[in-house]
Amino acid sequence: MDNFSFYAPTYFAFGKNSEERAGELVKRFGGSKVLLHFGGGSVVRSGLLERVKKSLDAAEIAWVELGGVKPNPRSGLVYEGIALCRKEGVDFILAVGGGSTIDSAKAIAAGVLYDGDFWDFYEGKPVTKALPVATVLTIAAAGSEGSPDSVITKEEGMIKRGASGEAYRPRFSILNPELTCTLPAYQTACGASDIIAHLYERYLTNSKDVQTTDRMIEALIMAMVEETPKVIADPNDYQARANIMWAGMMAHNNSCGVGRSQDWTSHEIEHELSALYDCAHGAGLAVVMPAVFRYNMKHDPARFAQIAERVWGIKNNGDVEATALAGIEALQKFLISIGMPKNFEELGAQEKDIEYLAHTCCYGDGNGSGRVGGFVSLEEKDVQNIYRLML
Amino acid sequence: MDNFSFYAPTYFAFGKNSEERAGELVKRFGGSKVLLHFGGGSVVRSGLLERVKKSLDAAEIAWVELGGVKPNPRSGLVYEGIALCRKEGVDFILAVGGGSTIDSAKAIAAGVLYDGDFWDFYEGKPVTKALPVATVLTIAAAGSEGSPDSVITKEEGMIKRGASGEAYRPRFSILNPELTCTLPAYQTACGASDIIAHLYERYLTNSKDVQTTDRMIEALIMAMVEETPKVIADPNDYQARANIMWAGMMAHNNSCGVGRSQDWTSHEIEHELSALYDCAHGAGLAVVMPAVFRYNMKHDPARFAQIAERVWGIKNNGDVEATALAGIEALQKFLISIGMPKNFEELGAQEKDIEYLAHTCCYGDGNGSGRVGGFVSLEEKDVQNIYRLML
Repeated sequence: MDNFSFYAPTYFAFGKNSEERAGELVKRFGGSKVLLHFGGGSVVRSGLLERVKKSLDAAEIAWVELGGVKPNPRSGLVYEGIALCRKEGVDFILAVGGGSTIDSAKAIAAGVLYDGDFWDFYEGKPVTKALPVATVLTIAAAGSEGSPDSVITKEEGMIKRGASGEAYRPRFSILNPELTCTLPAYQTACGASDIIAHLYERYLTNSKDVQTTDRMIEALIMAMVEETPKVIADPNDYQARANIMWAGMMAHNNSCGVGRSQDWTSHEIEHELSALYDCAHGAGLAVVMPAVFRYNMKHDPARFAQIAERVWGIKNNGDVEATALAGIEALQKFLISIGMPKNFEELGAQEKDIEYLAHTCCYGDGNGSGRVGGFVSLEEKDVQNIYRLML
Repeated sequence: MDNFSFYAPTYFAFGKNSEERAGELVKRFGGSKVLLHFGGGSVVRSGLLERVKKSLDAAEIAWVELGGVKPNPRSGLVYEGIALCRKEGVDFILAVGGGSTIDSAKAIAAGVLYDGDFWDFYEGKPVTKALPVATVLTIAAAGSEGSPDSVITKEEGMIKRGASGEAYRPRFSILNPELTCTLPAYQTACGASDIIAHLYERYLTNSKDVQTTDRMIEALIMAMVEETPKVIADPNDYQARANIMWAGMMAHNNSCGVGRSQDWTSHEIEHELSALYDCAHGAGLAVVMPAVFRYNMKHDPARFAQIAERVWGIKNNGDVEATALAGIEALQKFLISIGMPKNFEELGAQEKDIEYLAHTCCYGDGNGSGRVGGFVSLEEKDVQNIYRLML
């Protein structure tokens, strides 16, 4: 285990009707004027936004609103939000939605307190100051409700990049599993795929002697494998929704990722796909992960064999590589079984773009290092090869 | 899963030399004059206390000190600490030691800001205000470094009781696994037994559909079962010490206990033993747990069978009760293998005290409800029977 610091001071209000606590919690965490940030029509149609407003009104918290966040959230709306917050004297941002809305809220929060272009944070500048952010979560997926991370797409060039910093940890997050019951099966499965990816990206480590966090990660993947098919079969299975929601938070608040190097290759390679084709991030990951894992397997077959045995129940008959591979196959089979795509074609990606994708992945908009990955250091040619495995 | 709130805002500095950050962290969390609270000679002899003082001095943090905390920490020193803090204008308490020192520090922290007798909190008054507390941990065991709990023994009558409240969560905890390498094997094993008990007490639930937290608890127990024998064999196994230290914190910060009813029968029954005989809490738990589990097994054999299969690798041949029992036996065998006592005699407890123990357990010093336990509600006669299973 490596040395680390861990600080996850998000307050979680979990369960039925917990959105009614929004006003009380904004007050507790020092907000007086809130930007309500949200996406499309579903939080409006479902009445959720109205319930949150009512809760803020009851607590005498002022608010302004900014909707319109899209999946793979864009820089344009972030600039708009920054201007609105400054004009209105907003001191607290409440994201009502999923990972995209939360990530957009975080970017606005940092931008409001920064003189330069907020995009600087997405090119590597550490986020040290931001308005307080909180969330009312509507999909278990990104883990942004408990994480210090945010991912934004710059419209100019469609560049998708992440930023991170303690100031991005939400002050509170309201997790009501009921709010996720109206999600279509496809989106639910995309969320599950993203959660599983957060776990695998932490599992693939070069740090030795990390048994405790290995076991925790395996535990959360097993819970996801058990619970996800239940909600695909019955969207209103509250209990399975609840289990997934807590697993999704735990997968990404990093308590199971501390003290170990992590990977994030699959995320980096996927970001190019969702940036270019605007596909769902989780769907992209379902196609990317098996390809990356097959490509990187030989770097440490024993690690892949361990998860194959413990999570996927593969018998290890002494052939470590075969066991490792069977585990990757079991993962892909599972992802397909919950409705995820399995290749470029099903994802809507195109072979002709592979060189562009690999180049952007490795070099970004000119600032990339030319290499990708924490588990195995990959160069452009490797990334091309990985994309080809998805054909 | 039940509704819940979860708030664990402790900052963890983990790894080698992390005690050198004490001064920086006290400053970050707003302290200007610190009570350094500790136990016996080992933190002095090892030079740890000196290093912490040096770090405080370097950060220009003033401090006073109060040593002398004993295992099963006593009310007398708490009163002394409260008086000292008031006299010296202390605004921050830094516990340097294990669970006893931390629990004593928490009691002092609440007492300083309270007009009445601090013992009120240990008779059920909610802890809502306390001076900020932080820790430099020297043994992986109690989990108090990340928990909102404290257990104190009232000298008058030797009554051992717990108190809890958000104000008790440490602001920061310094976890340096090296500091635990000098612990004798017996104390190390006692710590492991306590950690495993924290996990079992959460596992034994009447809440349905708690797969995610079930899996997390199982994961942490498996890590403990794997790592503990390594440090018994080689006290200087830093990596195993590190894995145990993080598991011990995760076992009790409640991220794996949310949304489910919990038990705490073993702790309640053990507290009478360590209060009367001054035995180590973990050693007491090693004797108590198998007895409680055997007694309560029929309440939900499937739950015991599940942990038997998943953690202890017991084959379930269709006989749920036999599987459940084999799991309990495997637990006891493991505890004995790391050097824990197996019965009253080895613990230094006496059959003639059973009626007194059971009565105090159920009725405390006059304020008890007459019943004990969250998983199964036990009355005095049941508790007597359980103590008899330990003969």
